[in-house]
Amino acid sequence: MSIPSNLPLRNDLAGEEPYGAPQLDVPVCLNVNENPYAPSEAVIDTILERVRAVAPTLNRYPDREHAELRKALAAYLRKESQVELEPEQIWAANGSNEIMLQVFQAFGGPGRTALGFAPTYSMYPEYARDTFTAWTTVPRNADFTLDVDAAVKAILETRPSIVLITSPNNPTGTPATMEQIEALLAACEKAGVDGAPEGTHPLLVVDEAYIEFRRPGKPSATTLIADHPNLAVSRTMSKAFAYAGARVGYIAANTGVIDSLRIVRMPYHLSAVTQAVALAALDHTDEQLAQVGHLRDTRDALVDWFRQQTYKGQPIQVADTDSNFVFFGVFDDREWIFNELLNRGVLIRDVGPEGWLRVCMGTDEEMEAFKSAFLEVIRLAEQR
Amino acid sequence: MSIPSNLPLRNDLAGEEPYGAPQLDVPVCLNVNENPYAPSEAVIDTILERVRAVAPTLNRYPDREHAELRKALAAYLRKESQVELEPEQIWAANGSNEIMLQVFQAFGGPGRTALGFAPTYSMYPEYARDTFTAWTTVPRNADFTLDVDAAVKAILETRPSIVLITSPNNPTGTPATMEQIEALLAACEKAGVDGAPEGTHPLLVVDEAYIEFRRPGKPSATTLIADHPNLAVSRTMSKAFAYAGARVGYIAANTGVIDSLRIVRMPYHLSAVTQAVALAALDHTDEQLAQVGHLRDTRDALVDWFRQQTYKGQPIQVADTDSNFVFFGVFDDREWIFNELLNRGVLIRDVGPEGWLRVCMGTDEEMEAFKSAFLEVIRLAEQR
Repeated sequence: MSIPSNLPLRNDLAGEEPYGAPQLDVPVCLNVNENPYAPSEAVIDTILERVRAVAPTLNRYPDREHAELRKALAAYLRKESQVELEPEQIWAANGSNEIMLQVFQAFGGPGRTALGFAPTYSMYPEYARDTFTAWTTVPRNADFTLDVDAAVKAILETRPSIVLITSPNNPTGTPATMEQIEALLAACEKAGVDGAPEGTHPLLVVDEAYIEFRRPGKPSATTLIADHPNLAVSRTMSKAFAYAGARVGYIAANTGVIDSLRIVRMPYHLSAVTQAVALAALDHTDEQLAQVGHLRDTRDALVDWFRQQTYKGQPIQVADTDSNFVFFGVFDDREWIFNELLNRGVLIRDVGPEGWLRVCMGTDEEMEAFKSAFLEVIRLAEQR
Repeated sequence: MSIPSNLPLRNDLAGEEPYGAPQLDVPVCLNVNENPYAPSEAVIDTILERVRAVAPTLNRYPDREHAELRKALAAYLRKESQVELEPEQIWAANGSNEIMLQVFQAFGGPGRTALGFAPTYSMYPEYARDTFTAWTTVPRNADFTLDVDAAVKAILETRPSIVLITSPNNPTGTPATMEQIEALLAACEKAGVDGAPEGTHPLLVVDEAYIEFRRPGKPSATTLIADHPNLAVSRTMSKAFAYAGARVGYIAANTGVIDSLRIVRMPYHLSAVTQAVALAALDHTDEQLAQVGHLRDTRDALVDWFRQQTYKGQPIQVADTDSNFVFFGVFDDREWIFNELLNRGVLIRDVGPEGWLRVCMGTDEEMEAFKSAFLEVIRLAEQR
């Protein structure tokens, strides 16, 4: 990075670096919460069929409203979350990054504040920065669950335009309960918004990027949309759908929220090929979701395994997780552990509160590699 | 569009509509400057091969830096514009819409101004609005050429952070000469920037979306990049490459500009499939550019034809055009003409200064359909 001082870069971007985890070529990559299972031959065949069908039309602009994709996503949510939503209540973009940027573009801006619950996803402050929105956080409890009283108080006092809750949370994996989300919704429906006209209320955005990995029997916040015009639930195909490379995120909400995003979206933001490739995966939802079950089992087994390990005589702590990753600690020198794992070909993520590390679920072989490298490294740590 | 008043939509977005020309199902679509020639079977085969190759990796995030694509775009510019650029001097995104949004995100913002030359592309005010950048324009001459004296004066007085010149211009088709661009660059290199530190100068962005359609022998502004750190040239694969559905835009500039965009880009903004599909077209540049020659001839023939027609006894005016569209007028009721053409199955664009219309180049059959419908309609107009 070298930006000459005579370029009119935004003043607040001076010294900033591009966001992103290192993209290293390492045998075992467990750092960016990807799904380890590649698309099957059946999915690949459908991808090729659908791309073949749109290829002769690529000289034309794509459907700006991506109607077929929104219909397929509505059908998916009906199956996955038992929720009835119209296609008009769904909106897709190039990854949930772009979805969130559109949310901040429509509802944020100078004089407005977005509120989150720390520790949480490290991209949120970037969306805020990129849209000149103030970003503020309320600390979570020591076990990373939501501190509802503090959250409600902050919503009423801060008067944010956007309240952002991540469930399951990243990097901790912590789910929010429906009761907690409803308490936040009630606070939003009571609160005003700084920088907005009298009578407006904060938009509550639940980021459900990892929701498909939740333990059985738990509902999704999408089931609350019917009763709450100020609720939006964002999702992604990157995780459960094993489609990080395809860049498809989406959001479900009442049409007022969707129409707001339509004002700020770039026209034709979603290519004809992206729409086709997304539809191909949605043609195979049962297959995709079958793997989610195995990853859930892998996670639960890893949590149990961690709880049997000690580090310098102390039990290893593991955050309660409904996600495809496990957040564990506390290490007196997490960077050293991170680097020693990397030296053994295992890349995880050093993110969140000091002393904690995050590992995402890989294949059975990758998990074995991780566990044996980890045991080696903590034994080494104890001899340092 | 119906946005409940209790949603905290940005105050300045109240009443706004999503940007975009009507997407109508009409036999002859000449409204959005698409290339009428569908990708050939050879291109489609390469698309499928390249998508087949990346499909098994779609569970992984794509290359954030899209290195292979930037290399291929550098090779394309070497061939098309005889310019030597490093891959690091090129950056791609989902359409030049996203490129421009990134430019405004990096260099615009509250307290800063972007300057354009009206009439010009109607999306520019939207990029400005979405990034809280002020948008101001200097009028072009009556023949839509750049008024260089007024432009230089405005750059020095307005002290914008971004100067945006479209060449060929949209919707008029008017090219800027190298001398004009160099005069603007010289002004930028002298001017300060409101809202930026002392010593910074405006960034000049030349939007060359339609540059491949320029008349032979004219250079591209990319040839000026080596000598001008404050110059950026944006391009698209939507037009000459007949790839509007694939959504690939790019920008060429010195690495300081590219690094600035890298700060504000969403991580993984460009999907693995988009990268593969773009590379497939770049594998066939000779074929793609061969059609450009025919569209250029079609345009020159249409300009000649228009100049033989009269409307209510007056010659029809045609703007000098280096693009794949023709801007013509002046009609006392352009909406009526637009609608009568639409009634005859021909969709063009009612955009730009009052009384003018824009038609883009279709296939030979589409141009015949347009001309015969147009003759019918102006005869009818004379009888009204």
